[in-house]
Amino acid sequence: MGDDIAQALETIFSVDSELYRNRGFMRRVGFGERPALINIDLANAWTRPGNAFTCDGMDVIILGVQRLLTASRANEIPIVFTTTAYAVTEGPNTDMGIWHRKIPVEVLRLGTEAVAIDERIAPEPGEHVIVKKFASAFHGTYLAGFLRAAAVDTVIVTGVTMAGCVRHTVEDAIGLGFRPIVVRECVGDRVAGAIEWNLFDIDAKFGDVEALENVLDYLERVAPFTVREAEPAARIARD
Amino acid sequence: MGDDIAQALETIFSVDSELYRNRGFMRRVGFGERPALINIDLANAWTRPGNAFTCDGMDVIILGVQRLLTASRANEIPIVFTTTAYAVTEGPNTDMGIWHRKIPVEVLRLGTEAVAIDERIAPEPGEHVIVKKFASAFHGTYLAGFLRAAAVDTVIVTGVTMAGCVRHTVEDAIGLGFRPIVVRECVGDRVAGAIEWNLFDIDAKFGDVEALENVLDYLERVAPFTVREAEPAARIARD
Amino acid sequence: MGDDIAQALETIFSVDSELYRNRGFMRRVGFGERPALINIDLANAWTRPGNAFTCDGMDVIILGVQRLLTASRANEIPIVFTTTAYAVTEGPNTDMGIWHRKIPVEVLRLGTEAVAIDERIAPEPGEHVIVKKFASAFHGTYLAGFLRAAAVDTVIVTGVTMAGCVRHTVEDAIGLGFRPIVVRECVGDRVAGAIEWNLFDIDAKFGDVEALENVLDYLERVAPFTVREAEPAARIARD
Amino acid sequence: MGDDIAQALETIFSVDSELYRNRGFMRRVGFGERPALINIDLANAWTRPGNAFTCDGMDVIILGVQRLLTASRANEIPIVFTTTAYAVTEGPNTDMGIWHRKIPVEVLRLGTEAVAIDERIAPEPGEHVIVKKFASAFHGTYLAGFLRAAAVDTVIVTGVTMAGCVRHTVEDAIGLGFRPIVVRECVGDRVAGAIEWNLFDIDAKFGDVEALENVLDYLERVAPFTVREAEPAARIARD
Repeated sequence: MGDDIAQALETIFSVDSELYRNRGFMRRVGFGERPALINIDLANAWTRPGNAFTCDGMDVIILGVQRLLTASRANEIPIVFTTTAYAVTEGPNTDMGIWHRKIPVEVLRLGTEAVAIDERIAPEPGEHVIVKKFASAFHGTYLAGFLRAAAVDTVIVTGVTMAGCVRHTVEDAIGLGFRPIVVRECVGDRVAGAIEWNLFDIDAKFGDVEALENVLDYLERVAPFTVREAEPAARIARD
Repeated sequence: MGDDIAQALETIFSVDSELYRNRGFMRRVGFGERPALINIDLANAWTRPGNAFTCDGMDVIILGVQRLLTASRANEIPIVFTTTAYAVTEGPNTDMGIWHRKIPVEVLRLGTEAVAIDERIAPEPGEHVIVKKFASAFHGTYLAGFLRAAAVDTVIVTGVTMAGCVRHTVEDAIGLGFRPIVVRECVGDRVAGAIEWNLFDIDAKFGDVEALENVLDYLERVAPFTVREAEPAARIARD
Repeated sequence: MGDDIAQALETIFSVDSELYRNRGFMRRVGFGERPALINIDLANAWTRPGNAFTCDGMDVIILGVQRLLTASRANEIPIVFTTTAYAVTEGPNTDMGIWHRKIPVEVLRLGTEAVAIDERIAPEPGEHVIVKKFASAFHGTYLAGFLRAAAVDTVIVTGVTMAGCVRHTVEDAIGLGFRPIVVRECVGDRVAGAIEWNLFDIDAKFGDVEALENVLDYLERVAPFTVREAEPAARIARD
Repeated sequence: MGDDIAQALETIFSVDSELYRNRGFMRRVGFGERPALINIDLANAWTRPGNAFTCDGMDVIILGVQRLLTASRANEIPIVFTTTAYAVTEGPNTDMGIWHRKIPVEVLRLGTEAVAIDERIAPEPGEHVIVKKFASAFHGTYLAGFLRAAAVDTVIVTGVTMAGCVRHTVEDAIGLGFRPIVVRECVGDRVAGAIEWNLFDIDAKFGDVEALENVLDYLERVAPFTVREAEPAARIARD
């Protein structure tokens, strides 16, 4: 992104932020007690060159996510990766729904290398890889139920794209009752200005945009993540 | 329900329970740390005589729910009432969807006395009355997000009907990550055997069926229900 | 199921049906214009002997589903199979949520033969195999969006179990705006009486229970299932 | 919005559009066969001066929506209005979930004039007013099921704000299987540049942005919107 574009956006955000703050927007949701780390679409079609979905800035993003993974694993924080992939991309009844009428999702074939998580941040046993069909990680997946069952109250979000799947995931998260935290250095996109504008919208209305160092500090300080066992209920008479 | 029918059902359940237990079903989900009380469709159309939806056994159910309300209010446990009601019951585009093709939901008009919560268990300020259009209290409502935002992990379910809205609510609850507890004395129906059979299915697969006294004991012992405040996140540089 | 149990249930249903009909329940949702065939959990863990989830009556069910598949394929009707399977069954953060506290879902490992669709009714290319984590085929899956995008208005449901996944799927379907049709001869369970009781509840309130021959007749008569192409919208000025 | 800001955004969009088109994005979803008109949050808190949520440009927006309402009513196209309102805004268990930690939703009290639909575009009998708690019109509401039951395949979206509720509604719509069409002249916001940027993102990935005249032309041409009656299914033997 050229300096002139960056400057133009900063001018807009400065004016807009003042209006938002005067009206009581741009509050902080804050960190909760039990986070999960949600990495959106950091699969090869997005992280490597040469695909229609390829994004920029992966050196910084991958390095940041590696640090978040290390911190999360040390504290047994739940880790989720998503990818977007389709089993039926031809014929009248695909699992792409309407979306292929808008963007080239037909190149994202289930089971191909393109939709596998980037090996630089490879999932370990016990971590979740959720295949989704649409933008939000919550849409048509078991993510919300899984997070509730694990007593998670905060979602740390990284990945791509900021104008697409990351943003939609954050919008859904706050409505579903989770505190969304977007890691500033760990989100990307493929067109100029999209990261900045969408981070601005998110921070104003849907979730907190936080610096990587702040998030790492939080993940290291948070209480160890243990399973909360239920009290065994008494059996009813029949049993 | 006649004694012969009750006897026939008990015979079936005895055989079926043995098979389930041999196969590892009929486990206990148990009580969690933070319950909510969910009272399904205890509105006049179901609790009073003379409506197509009228249910039996209301003397016992209302009395039990009154005790659950008292215990929950003493501990500031979240309380939710649902009712089923429709704003548009004529013309081509009703909010009854397909359901009026199966059951007489057209008599449940929004804003009428029929769909108001029974005054013997009247909601107090700060308690929720959720208007739903279909059987499950979670279907097309904000209930799951509300419960997650309140850090609830357990839903205590009462109301009617056992073969309809109560059952569907419990099935959804466990999938959404909440521990479902059905209060044995506080659920009802309008046809013979439906309570017993559906409690049997629920207890085998979807939630625990518990005696009222056990649930009251739990609600009185559970830790006081306070809001969990988030740690204020640091503001990012822009702010 | 012994004759005495069958007789006891018929006696109950006769009384209950009369009450329902007098009150305006037990209506018909009917067949719509565009059906899909949804086969619930007809994977080896349910269709073959020796698993905790094994169901009875598979000879009849498989034969019936074969006929439904043939009729649906002839008319290019969308076909969906579901299975229930888990990627993470150990450690603190499984994808079984709360459910393993109730039933032995830990034996349903993703990628094993147990959770593969029975080869006697093997999916063909272009047909969908949806892996779900909970009872309903709609819960945490892309099924509803897929069916809407395909302009489906009617779901023909087969499979197992009647007291679990089939029932929950039907309850969700009608709330989501689809006409549910359960094929009488093509649903099963593993405990005595569960099929009959749950079909009774469904037919009273949530969907139509239809004989296999009626459904086959409908699938053969329905208009050929073609993709509905959108009218190309005019491009806005920017383009 | 100043001319310099508009110029800066146009420069960005020109570069970004070229990249998107080269990669196969920015396709057209097109108009389907059966539309619904969805008007997002055109209630007084957004359409009138003096509220924290007040938006700009209402003269043009209201006039445009009036024309869309007239065209839709002439053809019996389903019409939905949404508003965002809360019943419990104090105490530990509000229906605002996490959102009040980000934006001032506590001023949107259920039953007040602020959250009533603007009388210049007042709903008529048979039209739907959906109270939502979060940004998307689909989130925690019966909208998707209602639209499917009415055989709708296309959603014409108007209202506010473009960076919030309109955008989230469109993102959800395409995932849920509906063709989203945003009416260019009938969407608004309260901060500079937000309309333009979010329309750009939407048109690239999630829905078509169309001129009011094109949409009016479509609504007038579309086939009359009649209820599709199901074929009465044969009753099963029991009945």
